[in-house]
Amino acid sequence: MNNVLASAPAAPLRVVDVIRKKRDGRELSRAEIELLVEGYTRGEIPDYQVAAWLMAGVLRGFTRQETAALTEVMLHSGEVLDLSEFSPKKVDKHSTGGVGDKTSLVLAPLVAAGGLLVPMISGRGLGHTGGTLDKLESIPGFNVHLSLREFRRVLRGCGCSMIGQTEEIAPADRKLYALRDVTGTVESPYLICASIMSKKLAEGIDALLLDVKTGRGAFMKSEEQAELLAELMVETGERMGKRVVALITDMDQPLGHKVGNALEVAEVLEILHGNGPGDLRQLCLELAAWMFELGGACDGLSEGRKTAAQLIDSGRALEKFREMVELQGGDPSVLDHPAKLPRASLSGEVLSTTEGYITSIECEAIGTAGVILGGGRERKEDSVDPSVGIVLHKKVGDAVRREEPLATLHYNAESRAASARGLIEQSYEISEAPPAEVRPLVLRVIQGSGGY
Amino acid sequence: MNNVLASAPAAPLRVVDVIRKKRDGRELSRAEIELLVEGYTRGEIPDYQVAAWLMAGVLRGFTRQETAALTEVMLHSGEVLDLSEFSPKKVDKHSTGGVGDKTSLVLAPLVAAGGLLVPMISGRGLGHTGGTLDKLESIPGFNVHLSLREFRRVLRGCGCSMIGQTEEIAPADRKLYALRDVTGTVESPYLICASIMSKKLAEGIDALLLDVKTGRGAFMKSEEQAELLAELMVETGERMGKRVVALITDMDQPLGHKVGNALEVAEVLEILHGNGPGDLRQLCLELAAWMFELGGACDGLSEGRKTAAQLIDSGRALEKFREMVELQGGDPSVLDHPAKLPRASLSGEVLSTTEGYITSIECEAIGTAGVILGGGRERKEDSVDPSVGIVLHKKVGDAVRREEPLATLHYNAESRAASARGLIEQSYEISEAPPAEVRPLVLRVIQGSGGY
Repeated sequence: MNNVLASAPAAPLRVVDVIRKKRDGRELSRAEIELLVEGYTRGEIPDYQVAAWLMAGVLRGFTRQETAALTEVMLHSGEVLDLSEFSPKKVDKHSTGGVGDKTSLVLAPLVAAGGLLVPMISGRGLGHTGGTLDKLESIPGFNVHLSLREFRRVLRGCGCSMIGQTEEIAPADRKLYALRDVTGTVESPYLICASIMSKKLAEGIDALLLDVKTGRGAFMKSEEQAELLAELMVETGERMGKRVVALITDMDQPLGHKVGNALEVAEVLEILHGNGPGDLRQLCLELAAWMFELGGACDGLSEGRKTAAQLIDSGRALEKFREMVELQGGDPSVLDHPAKLPRASLSGEVLSTTEGYITSIECEAIGTAGVILGGGRERKEDSVDPSVGIVLHKKVGDAVRREEPLATLHYNAESRAASARGLIEQSYEISEAPPAEVRPLVLRVIQGSGGY
Repeated sequence: MNNVLASAPAAPLRVVDVIRKKRDGRELSRAEIELLVEGYTRGEIPDYQVAAWLMAGVLRGFTRQETAALTEVMLHSGEVLDLSEFSPKKVDKHSTGGVGDKTSLVLAPLVAAGGLLVPMISGRGLGHTGGTLDKLESIPGFNVHLSLREFRRVLRGCGCSMIGQTEEIAPADRKLYALRDVTGTVESPYLICASIMSKKLAEGIDALLLDVKTGRGAFMKSEEQAELLAELMVETGERMGKRVVALITDMDQPLGHKVGNALEVAEVLEILHGNGPGDLRQLCLELAAWMFELGGACDGLSEGRKTAAQLIDSGRALEKFREMVELQGGDPSVLDHPAKLPRASLSGEVLSTTEGYITSIECEAIGTAGVILGGGRERKEDSVDPSVGIVLHKKVGDAVRREEPLATLHYNAESRAASARGLIEQSYEISEAPPAEVRPLVLRVIQGSGGY
């Protein structure tokens, strides 16, 4: 029977057959993936068929071949920027999201100050993690909604620009992501890879550095999950002729000391002024070194780190940030007067009830506390309060005395502060002995087989 | 973190969380199943969320508890008939579908002639299998679209009635089935169980006999699949206080000799006249005996078989069929003059190209050939040609000479006949030696733990 039908003239592809094929765990051809993704983007295939297909994909997974085809079809659903008019190498960085991760705001000006072009299209915060756009918008006047023409203008002016996704870029991803969000089909490394890579490769870049977070505050809780996602993204990028490297980095505790939009911009300014928390500065230098390396702007990582440190300590990265803020309509005076950033009306400390050493911080709970204060979104439609957040005075390994402040909450509503306080109190684990070891910031580097 | 949130006041159920729970393989509560099924039936939950949930269910499966809850929620989405005004026990039979399976048309009048009430709500053919309603409609004038009021009138008149699903019965199933059909989520024993049982239990019956087909011409190709479905349905029926027995029966080759709507009615009349193929008569007697047993109308299966044979051989079952045909508007004269049934304009034989014994018949291909001739549906919207079909002259175990007819095609379009002929030629396997064994018709009986 199967042989008989197989020898019949090929019937036109039917959507339901593609769904069943994935349901049964078989590999889809590029034509089958095109049928679904292009048909859906054009509005010819209904939501419900794509939802069933997505769920089959989440549970059955996709091969590398399928993941690359899916990424490419999504990438070509919209405009792919051509930045060949710019002579420097175009390099971007993408983080899978964490708590207190504000490195993008340091890296764009820092790497542009080093001579590379950084065309960065970013996202908003969702769930317990913050988003680059929300942070930028806490700078009075800063406009992330640039057209692609304005984006080019800023890039021409200062070598870096940070904007939100536009209508023209990867419309298939925008439509698919909205559907995934309401159908329980977000959590798939294959779909996450295709979503991230289709947007990033549309930026017209030569190389991409991926910061794949792992740990209690990341979407990928285990190192294995993070590595799978990193490998998928590196391989997919390489298949499309890009240099891609992924760093697996620690997100077991928040990065830096500040969580919340304006608070994080303030911490970015500390870094750009040559100060700020050690862990944050170290990760920024490491990521910048890799971006220099990927863009051919340094001779080895060790030189890249030095260059990055010099660009910060000489104030050149801060000046580049100032240029970008001005070109995107923001008030540059906040760079020298962070007190001009939005500030919450109230604050309160969370005190330690015991004495000892911090052995762990429930990182996701810190992020959730930030959302409860109003600094993040529970739903996409929610607006965020830029002024609220948490300043952590103690991190893993630190000693703490009884009654000493663990953290300070900045808030505008007492009711929200009470639940956030409870979460933070419970997220600190304090023991008599210091922790045996603290995880390094960079856990692993994943490079492709093709040299990078 | 999880503990903290778990101790917070219970949030209202969110559809996406129910989808994710099933996606992650966890058991849903009755409230969660109600949320989805009732919300969908009322039009409050969109197709795409239900499609994702169905696919998660197909791939993750459902527990017995979930399957029973799903069935019950679907059952109570519409009217549940109360037939308590009728004193006889109400017994129905359901078949999971096969090729040449026309037993329902024999059983309804036969079992009613034996004193039980048979309120049978049936379906149409889809794919390679035929449907009871399509067969009945080849009787000129026969109306399967009765209201529930008319259904009762026919039941009162003759003790049996055969109609199609009405608007009032299990609307949740109708809506879910339409969605499953286009999202690749039909093939799940749990969803099939809930679909069948929600409709059958809405008939107000006391007991139900299930004929679960297995083999190359059935939806459940393997005995294990058939047994799982049978067990699910028996257990679900018992949880709702019904007597339910399932027979696993052979569908490795077509049942009887005739495949096609009017042809099958003609074969039903042969049986009701005391003649007809041995396999078909034997299965009808066996199924009738079980229905008598379930309805308390006989003392043991062996007496049940004898009663059934007497009701056929005395002509009483045929008279009951005549009453039902008349009450549902059909032309009763076809019972004595089957030549009045719709007849195809053309016919042609498929000859054997070799000599030997039939060792197997690719049963699904025979069904597909019938669809190609126009006797079945490729899509739900397709209309069927009642006159076309296939008469098989040879079945498994039969000897055949070179040039002897294997089958006769009845058709109205040469182009269709050519492809059907090719399928049939290839579906017969002929060897020098007879097959070592022919599968018995009834492979297993599955009864619940509660006595039945």
